[in-house]
Amino acid sequence: MPPGNDKTLRTDRLVVLGGGERARRPGQVWLVGAGPGDPELLTIKALKVLQSAEVVVHDGLVSDEILALAPPQARRISVAKRKSRHSYSQDEINRMLTAFALEGLEVVRLKGGDPFIFGRGGEELEACREAGVDCHVVPGVTAALAAGASAGAPLTHRGSAQAVTFVTGHASQGAEPDLDWASLARPNQTVVIYMGLSQATAIAGRLMAAGRSGATPALIVENASRGDERRVATTLLGLAEAASALKGPALLIVGEAMALARSSETTVETLIREARA
Amino acid sequence: MPPGNDKTLRTDRLVVLGGGERARRPGQVWLVGAGPGDPELLTIKALKVLQSAEVVVHDGLVSDEILALAPPQARRISVAKRKSRHSYSQDEINRMLTAFALEGLEVVRLKGGDPFIFGRGGEELEACREAGVDCHVVPGVTAALAAGASAGAPLTHRGSAQAVTFVTGHASQGAEPDLDWASLARPNQTVVIYMGLSQATAIAGRLMAAGRSGATPALIVENASRGDERRVATTLLGLAEAASALKGPALLIVGEAMALARSSETTVETLIREARA
Repeated sequence: MPPGNDKTLRTDRLVVLGGGERARRPGQVWLVGAGPGDPELLTIKALKVLQSAEVVVHDGLVSDEILALAPPQARRISVAKRKSRHSYSQDEINRMLTAFALEGLEVVRLKGGDPFIFGRGGEELEACREAGVDCHVVPGVTAALAAGASAGAPLTHRGSAQAVTFVTGHASQGAEPDLDWASLARPNQTVVIYMGLSQATAIAGRLMAAGRSGATPALIVENASRGDERRVATTLLGLAEAASALKGPALLIVGEAMALARSSETTVETLIREARA
Repeated sequence: MPPGNDKTLRTDRLVVLGGGERARRPGQVWLVGAGPGDPELLTIKALKVLQSAEVVVHDGLVSDEILALAPPQARRISVAKRKSRHSYSQDEINRMLTAFALEGLEVVRLKGGDPFIFGRGGEELEACREAGVDCHVVPGVTAALAAGASAGAPLTHRGSAQAVTFVTGHASQGAEPDLDWASLARPNQTVVIYMGLSQATAIAGRLMAAGRSGATPALIVENASRGDERRVATTLLGLAEAASALKGPALLIVGEAMALARSSETTVETLIREARA
């Protein structure tokens, strides 16, 4: 029975194959949000689906603790980006997912955060549809929500954050991210930049050039919700310098409501230790 | 021991009271995201915290199935908005939370979705800080993520949705929502309007007046992730008419990536039945 989705089990989908092959229904693909990192921030549904996986195709952002929740005999395939060896292209990942499902396997595509927030889940869903493979999506807690929760800083807040926008700081090599700076520079909104750490200087500069005050509160959260989470509460003017002290993966969050954010003790201690060294 | 947060248990916080009162540590407030409705979309951490609650203060959007997960002896207090009888003001809710915690109770403030996305969690956190009450935040799957997952429509998507913005359609009685229409009208971004159903005509009109094409794909999701979920995939031009067939709570989602969205079978059947009636 497909986990967490009993309603989709239809006996008319049982396929009897000839030639000695065993009868089994077609496989399917589950695009599952693993949440921000803390295994307790998995949803119950994600846990159930993972526990029934036959193949788990996962990102580098998914922790070993979470991967350990899949059955021991499930095949685990990392498609994390690596500098030293072959990285899978999106097209290769798409073909891998559909091929396993067409072999009759329960395939879990496990992604950090939510599959549809900068996770390229839409492309994998389209590939499944084109291949005639059933694809189900299990939403997850995206990193921005975990970062706000850890820092005690609301992403929306009466009077100071009427809207929240998620963008990506990722850009082609050597280029700056191509964002709508004029819109993002308007006051009284929260802007969350995923994968923006290495571009923090350019991002802060563009936002200020477009009119956002350098005094706007800002927050950087590295490894949100994990045991090694570090947070620095700063301002838009101080964002680039603070970013240089962190290594990522991290979120940059800019907005008036970040005035409520608290730096982590670890970060303050680390910065003091580094200043003394 | 406080659930899911072992690191915060400090023996120096044990308070011995005189006059025959029993010794116990101070209470605390947990702002907990209950997710979009499906109890399986609770996080494991939210479940653990809820199972240790002594008082649960909850919204109308939190389902009975989820409330049933709290201990039978836990006091349950609904602060849902009601037309027929007294509704609690935000100030009254804030005072209730801090007063229970100061009495030494484990207080769970249970909110639909995520506490920091249009949940007024920031105000409750501030009230706790002012009262000297420890406050912890457990993030949740906000409704937009569940809506995208159900409809098979990514909120960000390569080439057609570089950003996603969450706004609220809620406005003072009789007024239109006060949003940054020029920014929201730019193409290649997804705009999610929470609590926008009753304002759908005004919202669609404003977006088109500001330049967003009437052909832009749009999606309405009512009761995202619940058993009675209904979805209508339409266009910005058709948004107002589709909205008139639904009652809410619902999200309006506008953006090119909604071209991938699928209406629910229930909705199609309902609309056909209504057309024949």
